[in-house]
Amino acid sequence: MAKETKTGKSGRGTLIIIGGHEDHNDHRVILKEVASRIKDGKLVLATVASHEPDGYLEKYRSSFAALGVPDVTELYIDERDQAAMDDKLERLRQVKAVFFSGGDQLRITSLIGDTPIYRQIHDIFADGGVIAGTSAGASAMSETMLVRGRNASSFRIGDISMATGLGLLPNVIIDQHFAERGRIGRLIGAVSQNPRVLGIGIDEDTAIVVQGHQFRVIGSGAVYLVDGGDVTHSNIAEASTEEALSIYDLRLHVLSSGDTFDLETRRPVREPHKEG
Amino acid sequence: MAKETKTGKSGRGTLIIIGGHEDHNDHRVILKEVASRIKDGKLVLATVASHEPDGYLEKYRSSFAALGVPDVTELYIDERDQAAMDDKLERLRQVKAVFFSGGDQLRITSLIGDTPIYRQIHDIFADGGVIAGTSAGASAMSETMLVRGRNASSFRIGDISMATGLGLLPNVIIDQHFAERGRIGRLIGAVSQNPRVLGIGIDEDTAIVVQGHQFRVIGSGAVYLVDGGDVTHSNIAEASTEEALSIYDLRLHVLSSGDTFDLETRRPVREPHKEG
Repeated sequence: MAKETKTGKSGRGTLIIIGGHEDHNDHRVILKEVASRIKDGKLVLATVASHEPDGYLEKYRSSFAALGVPDVTELYIDERDQAAMDDKLERLRQVKAVFFSGGDQLRITSLIGDTPIYRQIHDIFADGGVIAGTSAGASAMSETMLVRGRNASSFRIGDISMATGLGLLPNVIIDQHFAERGRIGRLIGAVSQNPRVLGIGIDEDTAIVVQGHQFRVIGSGAVYLVDGGDVTHSNIAEASTEEALSIYDLRLHVLSSGDTFDLETRRPVREPHKEG
Repeated sequence: MAKETKTGKSGRGTLIIIGGHEDHNDHRVILKEVASRIKDGKLVLATVASHEPDGYLEKYRSSFAALGVPDVTELYIDERDQAAMDDKLERLRQVKAVFFSGGDQLRITSLIGDTPIYRQIHDIFADGGVIAGTSAGASAMSETMLVRGRNASSFRIGDISMATGLGLLPNVIIDQHFAERGRIGRLIGAVSQNPRVLGIGIDEDTAIVVQGHQFRVIGSGAVYLVDGGDVTHSNIAEASTEEALSIYDLRLHVLSSGDTFDLETRRPVREPHKEG
């Protein structure tokens, strides 16, 4: 069962959460997956995460046209009051798929959070549509999101930078460009704050396809699940800001293409072909 | 109880295993720890890991002189036959402390492995001396060592590059520059090959001080322990070389300064001041 979303409707749709830099030229596994779920040929590309989304529309339009999705239009706003404009809402009423491109996840949430656009996106999801997001668009999916944090560094107690996300996927924290930018430290830091959230770190050109409470991994990299449920000790609440985090007994799963994970049991789902 | 080393003598000494870039200018916590254990003022700096160790001796000599170790001499060889030279062995007979500087761990093992120098170093350790190593000098401590592997990348099945190490610390694989170079992927890969080894990833300016079967963490970063003992599935033996590793149920501990770990029980040691 999908959990209730913040708008009060149960999400029956599909989330495709991408770790950034999905392939546009070669095997295009991830964009094919998105395209295969769009039956009416219509997609809204939400470029709101970017200050300068020049070229994004052309790039995605070209890629999706080749994959059988001819009708791609852009949703871009620069101020919150634009998020109530009739033409933008009208377009969202006509589609069943939205793709958030990369940039800064705080732009997504600060510009559309609690606006009519935000509610329309939740409605699309609740009605069985597809919400995809790459990079910043991936991070923004969760209830609480990581907004920044050091790359290639162990977590320091003072490195807290979280914000409220779009609330499409509860009880998780999502990080992207994961192995490529050395982000295990900051994801562990986020989980240490409250192990109620499951940490999900997604590599570039890699995605999770979420339906109900399960997801499947696609793409060329790995997905890291950091589960703090059994943690026996951490210094997150005690140490001074420049100290390095200490945390014992995390559970870590590394998943790759074809693996399936259950978000309710927090366990990988063993399928016959994966038995070794 | 310390385990038997490969030379057949039980190591009663201290290993100080450093993740690279230990501070030389400011707090110098790690070099102070090394210096505090040298009672006779004599240290051999083994620069054999480096092709061009110019300047290493001057740098360490200056740092150690300021910390009360006035007599630092260099051990450098370029060919295996130099590892039997009398003057080098005579110097090693006079000291109780050796410090391996950085470079390429394969140079250390290929040049001194099974030579009289190698046996002399084991004797120093067995007799209660100090063997320290930073960066490549850290990796070389274990029975089997990581020699190379992609940074900032998830592990691919074909990314195997291991070699026989100095054998001073059994049952572990050590990696260094750990968070800084995004090396969790390759350490997990090494552990996946045989979970008998415990993965130890050490950040820069961070070290573990090993005595018997316990170690303590010092320095400014973190130490990651990757324990594959409870792993329920991995595709390491089945998947093709370019596929990403999949592995379930790793246990991960992140330790920082002051934390203690037991290598026999594979558990952090909870001390009263760490109780939260």
